[in-house]
Amino acid sequence: MTKGKFIVIEGVEGAGKSHQCKRLLEGLTAMGVDAILTREPGGAALAEGIRKLLLDPEYSPDAVTELYLYSAARRDHLNKVIFPALDSGKVVVCDRFTFSTFAYQGYGRGLDIDFVNRVNAKTIAPLKIDLGLFLDITPEDGFTRKGGADKTDRLERESLDFFNRVYKGFKELCARGELVPIDASGEKTRTAENILREVRKIL
Amino acid sequence: MTKGKFIVIEGVEGAGKSHQCKRLLEGLTAMGVDAILTREPGGAALAEGIRKLLLDPEYSPDAVTELYLYSAARRDHLNKVIFPALDSGKVVVCDRFTFSTFAYQGYGRGLDIDFVNRVNAKTIAPLKIDLGLFLDITPEDGFTRKGGADKTDRLERESLDFFNRVYKGFKELCARGELVPIDASGEKTRTAENILREVRKIL
Repeated sequence: MTKGKFIVIEGVEGAGKSHQCKRLLEGLTAMGVDAILTREPGGAALAEGIRKLLLDPEYSPDAVTELYLYSAARRDHLNKVIFPALDSGKVVVCDRFTFSTFAYQGYGRGLDIDFVNRVNAKTIAPLKIDLGLFLDITPEDGFTRKGGADKTDRLERESLDFFNRVYKGFKELCARGELVPIDASGEKTRTAENILREVRKIL
Repeated sequence: MTKGKFIVIEGVEGAGKSHQCKRLLEGLTAMGVDAILTREPGGAALAEGIRKLLLDPEYSPDAVTELYLYSAARRDHLNKVIFPALDSGKVVVCDRFTFSTFAYQGYGRGLDIDFVNRVNAKTIAPLKIDLGLFLDITPEDGFTRKGGADKTDRLERESLDFFNRVYKGFKELCARGELVPIDASGEKTRTAENILREVRKIL
């Protein structure tokens, strides 16, 4: 369907996604590849409006409502940003995508996994995800890296349980071959090299 | 699950839904029944925010995005308004519901019907719809009644085709027994009596 390539970078909090996405874009550009970096909601006007509703602390959407809102924002982002970029032959690097919905809403919030999969499939059709990478670091290590050891202590037990379930969801996708795990516990430059090696395989 | 009763009134434009919903509420109240009338998004704060996005002419959501946004607003409306009312034993009369999504997004906009049904079922679970009534009037008659014959002429062909598909969707739900058709082409008082007769059966 499309001429470009679609690459997703996933990971739990503190895995270094934003940093690695930026490095990947720099690496691709240095190789002469016409690439863009985007993240949901990604600058589409309606998607930004939905994002505001999702982040407003006044509201308390349940897991089903949240699934629909994230999916609506994703669909708008696809129509207005991602599909046009792919049609013009660009490589699109996306910071989080449907894998996060599977892990956060499915495993984290306990929604029916089969339903989440159906919604995800309908939302992105006819997109083909060329490569999904999972920056593998445990939630505990991610929190420690992000805020220091004291921050881990302040986490409520329930919250850490939630992120451990999310991590399990990502690992399930790795086991199924939908995501390629990249060890993200070591030196950042090493992680960036491992990411670029996987990306080269699909270009 | 619930102590109250949930009644939906559906129909195409010009069928007289709003008027009949109001009359039904008056009829129920006169019978001493504790009833409320609601319509989507129904006063829930998040649902109102979603409604604003759906009505903003700046945006152009496709059919899938629209399905998610209507469903998110519905879920929020259920959680904040309908479930609490049913739990307290009230009869809830709702002006449009999942049947409209089936007819408008499924038949009208051509979305995969099986997917629309799955989304509708997940959105309202564990709600049981006690009665769905379809105020039966053709789109042509509805437009004529609403704006006079001149308005029908100004309708673009595509628009009338759309509403004829929507009407076909509602008739399909009648054929399956999910909606009870009520002839709405005649005198309003007669229609109101027919509605009340169906409602009495489930109280």
